[in-house]
Amino acid sequence: MTRTVFVNGEYLPETDAKISIFDRGFLMADGVYEVTSVLGGKLIDFDGHLKRLERSLNELDMEKPSEFDDLLEIHRKLVELNGIEEGMIYLQVTRGAPGDRDFVFPDPAETRPTLVLFTQNKPGLADSPAAQKGIKVISIEDIRWGRRDIKTVQLLYPSMGKMMAKKAGCDDAWLVEEGKVTEGTSNNAYIVKDGKIITRALSNDILHGITRAAVLRFAREAQMEVVERSFTIEEAQQADEAFVTSASTFVMPVVEIDGAEIGEGAVGPVAKRLREIYLDESLKAAV
Amino acid sequence: MTRTVFVNGEYLPETDAKISIFDRGFLMADGVYEVTSVLGGKLIDFDGHLKRLERSLNELDMEKPSEFDDLLEIHRKLVELNGIEEGMIYLQVTRGAPGDRDFVFPDPAETRPTLVLFTQNKPGLADSPAAQKGIKVISIEDIRWGRRDIKTVQLLYPSMGKMMAKKAGCDDAWLVEEGKVTEGTSNNAYIVKDGKIITRALSNDILHGITRAAVLRFAREAQMEVVERSFTIEEAQQADEAFVTSASTFVMPVVEIDGAEIGEGAVGPVAKRLREIYLDESLKAAV
Repeated sequence: MTRTVFVNGEYLPETDAKISIFDRGFLMADGVYEVTSVLGGKLIDFDGHLKRLERSLNELDMEKPSEFDDLLEIHRKLVELNGIEEGMIYLQVTRGAPGDRDFVFPDPAETRPTLVLFTQNKPGLADSPAAQKGIKVISIEDIRWGRRDIKTVQLLYPSMGKMMAKKAGCDDAWLVEEGKVTEGTSNNAYIVKDGKIITRALSNDILHGITRAAVLRFAREAQMEVVERSFTIEEAQQADEAFVTSASTFVMPVVEIDGAEIGEGAVGPVAKRLREIYLDESLKAAV
Repeated sequence: MTRTVFVNGEYLPETDAKISIFDRGFLMADGVYEVTSVLGGKLIDFDGHLKRLERSLNELDMEKPSEFDDLLEIHRKLVELNGIEEGMIYLQVTRGAPGDRDFVFPDPAETRPTLVLFTQNKPGLADSPAAQKGIKVISIEDIRWGRRDIKTVQLLYPSMGKMMAKKAGCDDAWLVEEGKVTEGTSNNAYIVKDGKIITRALSNDILHGITRAAVLRFAREAQMEVVERSFTIEEAQQADEAFVTSASTFVMPVVEIDGAEIGEGAVGPVAKRLREIYLDESLKAAV
């Protein structure tokens, strides 16, 4: 089936969905994005994603696309048009396509932001086999730019990291800066030791995960202890459990780091329980 | 006049020049670029740009576009079609547009690289008034990723730096990491002290400028002393001269750094002479 996607106000077949070669997203990575999950045909954590999008735009002095207030409606229409029960909606805003390439930002009165959305159909997303088995990660140096709190499309290094993991027979990579884990290539990283859930505190060094915020809230509500601090790969290897969170993988157990099994080398009870709580609560609040 | 541009084998009016929203250049900044200057209707340092393009592609495990061997011909045809006497040709290669978004690189047998080229007409480029007056720069922290030797389209921070300079009433920004200048937002940085030309040595920290290589060669041939080492903003402010080099500005004098005048606050003899030599020699070798 040909997807219907959204490009600057129009619903189009994906094969006709194009942007100008002068778009600053294409020429300068001058764009931000969000990925919202769909479960049971409904949007998970939509408000959180919208708020973070607004923050990303503000941090970059980027205008809101004119359809900003209609984003919920556009998401819902794409879900409907493409018959998505489980999957994701990807949204990208760029500073638009001025008439030429220039490092100087274009005048927003003349150059409007580009807005692109498309769906990804993923039947079985919530019931993922990977979540039963857990994933294996390698560690690599974190050489990304210094503002990882802004969700920009500068994803070349995360993409390279995923390829390094694949070559090593693993599923993903954890990024390490000054000896401490920052996060995964496209997710936040956690360990569990003696019942405590440990994850790096928010700063410009990591993405302020929407799923991270929800999972930590649910954990605290369930009387689990949460400690926000950095940790090393060695500490992670000696932890009882490890996991990652993201909008599209929810809570995903990590069972091996740089070849070392974590705990029993199988999915642990804390990650399992957090995934269940997150899915239950998010589904209840889905829109 | 509507420009004719080149997109994946076709010469098109710029208004029709589009790429898929699934292009990895747009979604993930998974692309590299080169800018070649045109003087007297001919290409400056073309071989150097082609070699660096090849290196950037290799470093990212990116395939060459199928038109790689025809790039000189494509450049020349764009110069001719658009009647460029002085200006630039911009070239961008991305990992192409697979059917969907994925951090994993697409199979190059199925997804071919995207190749885009366009001209920028800049009459008076060699005789720039800015080169007579010199430019003013501010210093900002260098928070870019760690592989600046690869000429990727991850240009958001350099673009932000240019805006910070503009807000401060200046022309450009010099980036500073661990107390030392790395380079300008889109150029290599130099100071001159007691007749010595000082510029940071090549590493992953800076772009391996094609103009830098040529200027240093010409300087040595003219018996000027070249020292490749890092320097601080304070040292630069106390230098006799400062300048930057790039493919589109050649040798551009810097007369003020963070509000402090350099030397007499006017274009110095070394930068002036290097600009003359570079333009003379490059024109002779233009193709």
